[in-house]
Amino acid sequence: MRVVDIIAKKRDNYKLTEEEIHYILDKYINKEIPDYQMSAFLMAIYFNGLDKDEIAIFTDKFVNSGDIIELEREINSFIIDKHSTGGVGDKVTIALLPIFSSLGIGTLKLSGKGLGHTGGTIDKLESINNFKFPNTKEELLEKFHETNIGIMGYTDKIVPLDKEIYSLRDVTATVSSLPLIAISVMSKKLVIPSNGIILDIKVGKGAFIKNIDDGEKLSDIMIDIGRKFNKKMVTILSNMDEPLGNKIGNALEIEEVIEILNGDGPKDLRKFITDFTAIAINMKNPEIDYENGKKMVEDVINSKKALDEFRKMIDSYGGDSSIIDNIDKLGISKNTDYILADKTGYVKEIDTEKIGIAVMKLGAGRETKDDTIDYSVGLKLYKKIGDYVKKGEKLFKVYHKNNRELEKIKLDILNSYLIVGEKVEKKPIILKIKGGDFIEHK
Amino acid sequence: MRVVDIIAKKRDNYKLTEEEIHYILDKYINKEIPDYQMSAFLMAIYFNGLDKDEIAIFTDKFVNSGDIIELEREINSFIIDKHSTGGVGDKVTIALLPIFSSLGIGTLKLSGKGLGHTGGTIDKLESINNFKFPNTKEELLEKFHETNIGIMGYTDKIVPLDKEIYSLRDVTATVSSLPLIAISVMSKKLVIPSNGIILDIKVGKGAFIKNIDDGEKLSDIMIDIGRKFNKKMVTILSNMDEPLGNKIGNALEIEEVIEILNGDGPKDLRKFITDFTAIAINMKNPEIDYENGKKMVEDVINSKKALDEFRKMIDSYGGDSSIIDNIDKLGISKNTDYILADKTGYVKEIDTEKIGIAVMKLGAGRETKDDTIDYSVGLKLYKKIGDYVKKGEKLFKVYHKNNRELEKIKLDILNSYLIVGEKVEKKPIILKIKGGDFIEHK
Repeated sequence: MRVVDIIAKKRDNYKLTEEEIHYILDKYINKEIPDYQMSAFLMAIYFNGLDKDEIAIFTDKFVNSGDIIELEREINSFIIDKHSTGGVGDKVTIALLPIFSSLGIGTLKLSGKGLGHTGGTIDKLESINNFKFPNTKEELLEKFHETNIGIMGYTDKIVPLDKEIYSLRDVTATVSSLPLIAISVMSKKLVIPSNGIILDIKVGKGAFIKNIDDGEKLSDIMIDIGRKFNKKMVTILSNMDEPLGNKIGNALEIEEVIEILNGDGPKDLRKFITDFTAIAINMKNPEIDYENGKKMVEDVINSKKALDEFRKMIDSYGGDSSIIDNIDKLGISKNTDYILADKTGYVKEIDTEKIGIAVMKLGAGRETKDDTIDYSVGLKLYKKIGDYVKKGEKLFKVYHKNNRELEKIKLDILNSYLIVGEKVEKKPIILKIKGGDFIEHK
Repeated sequence: MRVVDIIAKKRDNYKLTEEEIHYILDKYINKEIPDYQMSAFLMAIYFNGLDKDEIAIFTDKFVNSGDIIELEREINSFIIDKHSTGGVGDKVTIALLPIFSSLGIGTLKLSGKGLGHTGGTIDKLESINNFKFPNTKEELLEKFHETNIGIMGYTDKIVPLDKEIYSLRDVTATVSSLPLIAISVMSKKLVIPSNGIILDIKVGKGAFIKNIDDGEKLSDIMIDIGRKFNKKMVTILSNMDEPLGNKIGNALEIEEVIEILNGDGPKDLRKFITDFTAIAINMKNPEIDYENGKKMVEDVINSKKALDEFRKMIDSYGGDSSIIDNIDKLGISKNTDYILADKTGYVKEIDTEKIGIAVMKLGAGRETKDDTIDYSVGLKLYKKIGDYVKKGEKLFKVYHKNNRELEKIKLDILNSYLIVGEKVEKKPIILKIKGGDFIEHK
């Protein structure tokens, strides 16, 4: 068997055998084949894809390339791993952790840091003073048993094959391959115990997936992988043509989560979180339909049970939970500037990626992996798509640290809005729900 | 500008600018970008191709990446660079050199060594005792002025960018990209002076190009490149569904060339060489049509003028020209075995690549670049496609050195023939002629 023949076979769109896939991946992880062969192979996959069988073999190989986390004792909890493909202002995971927990749904998950125009759950939670994530699987399981919420960042031992291949894809224009995205995401879900996985696939201008067709294809691949590994699966295709909620930036997003858990916060985000949780409740117990699920969510929020769970979680992870009652302790920057609308009309489009990059440039995100981030800066949006705005009215509030490029960043943010004369309809956040019993019950 | 964005642009089938192509090729030749980015880029080109403008920019960059050979004084001769894309038993270049020369057509060309199932002109001529090719452009021009035939192997200074990129393509399954093949071949024609280029594009089971459609596409690309560089251009698509002529192997092919120059040799090969030369004559002088050209070829062969030119050339290159009159001096192996037909019928198919590989395994070719070759071994074919053969009749004669795998090789050769009951039509060698005035005159 020769690597070049395996590359040629994929290039010519023939189906690879298990032996061939094992051969090339084993050799790659053992550094017996050079990056230049792997990158040509990945580009051939970009063009010709991988079928369901090939994807299953790849995923299995990825999963078994490193550590696998296993529960050491029987537990009562139903565990859901909720994952988002990444967007701007996406603090949904953080809100769901305590809501799920208050409903008897456990979470065990590995989470990423922010890179480029999208933020990361890890960074957002670390904006809470002294909040520390586990570093080992033992610590992770300890936290999980304590609070029903186990979450930590990726380590080098978790799916090392993905780590290697992802860094190669990143510099060879092969990131945006749907099967490779699916394998990368799913392999990192499958090394940790769960009963079900809910994937929030972001679609739109601020997401890696730009159109609903690709979102559906990715969704189908991921559902298929999950089911092969005996997971309950639901995917939610959600709108990323505009930022999620009104606040973007690490501490600012924690502030918005606390608003949500207090029953406040943006109405559309509140609805999204409620819908999401109803799906999770139904996944755990198919007898509970959407309407009843929704009521249960409202109950744990109105009773502050979810907020209490958040407090417990922060305490358990070493953080300062007094921020919940004293938001000032989050240390959100006091240097603020308003940006005012330069015309009157309806918000038609928001260049969400541009906004994500602007917030990154304020210091809230990383341009490269090694950049440090500033938790205190960010952006508050006063207007979303469909809203009416008058010239001179507040469009944004920028929380900054007097950055050198501040004026340029502010202009970029202003220019990311398209305001038009005619009325514009608001889009729902959830575009489509796929897989799972929920759909049949609804 | 970032390399990854240029890769993504080609991946998404957008046209690259001159600036972008220069950027990526300059960085590559200066070793400022890694092979893994270049190989992903090459695979993207494999899928999306290059348009005429991109090809011209690539070719220009290739040509100017190393030495360019220039004539130091005015000459009278019309120079044609004749090139074959490589086949099994292809000794046509060697026969044409003295025929062209005897007709006042000069040759200046760089030639390759054999690799894999195809032989190389350089190796075949080196089977003549003491035959030495020039090593420098000065020596090359000296030989050219002496005999009107200037030929040498590639050096590291000739189109080094092609050398680098070809060796990367070879291990990343990106060899068979038509624009990349065209750029590679044509850039090596354009670094040496010529008035016209005649390309023999081999098509069929024993060639890199397997079907006539690809042959035509490759032909169109090459003609377009040549004309952009002010060359008269003709391409000949010729049949490589069976070996060319009856002899395969280095000294054996020199023997067949001498037969041809003596007015003997296989009829179809003789016709091919006559047609080829008539095209060259017409390229030099559009007033001379095919029928007159043909007569001129017959004249220089019947008068032994062409054979004399071959003798002069061998002498000039230091070789032992007495082989012409004493073929034994070629040292063709005396160990010979016949292979007999195992059934009666008509030859329908010959797996020409399999035969090429068998001859390589006898020792006549190279499996890898560093293998040494044995000039004395090879194969004589008694039957070609369309011929009738009786069970027990001679099919082949194997000239060998008692190789360890001899029996296996002989079986492979026998198995490369498909003999059937019904009559089979012979295919002409020339499938199509493209470009050039010749076509219009014919």
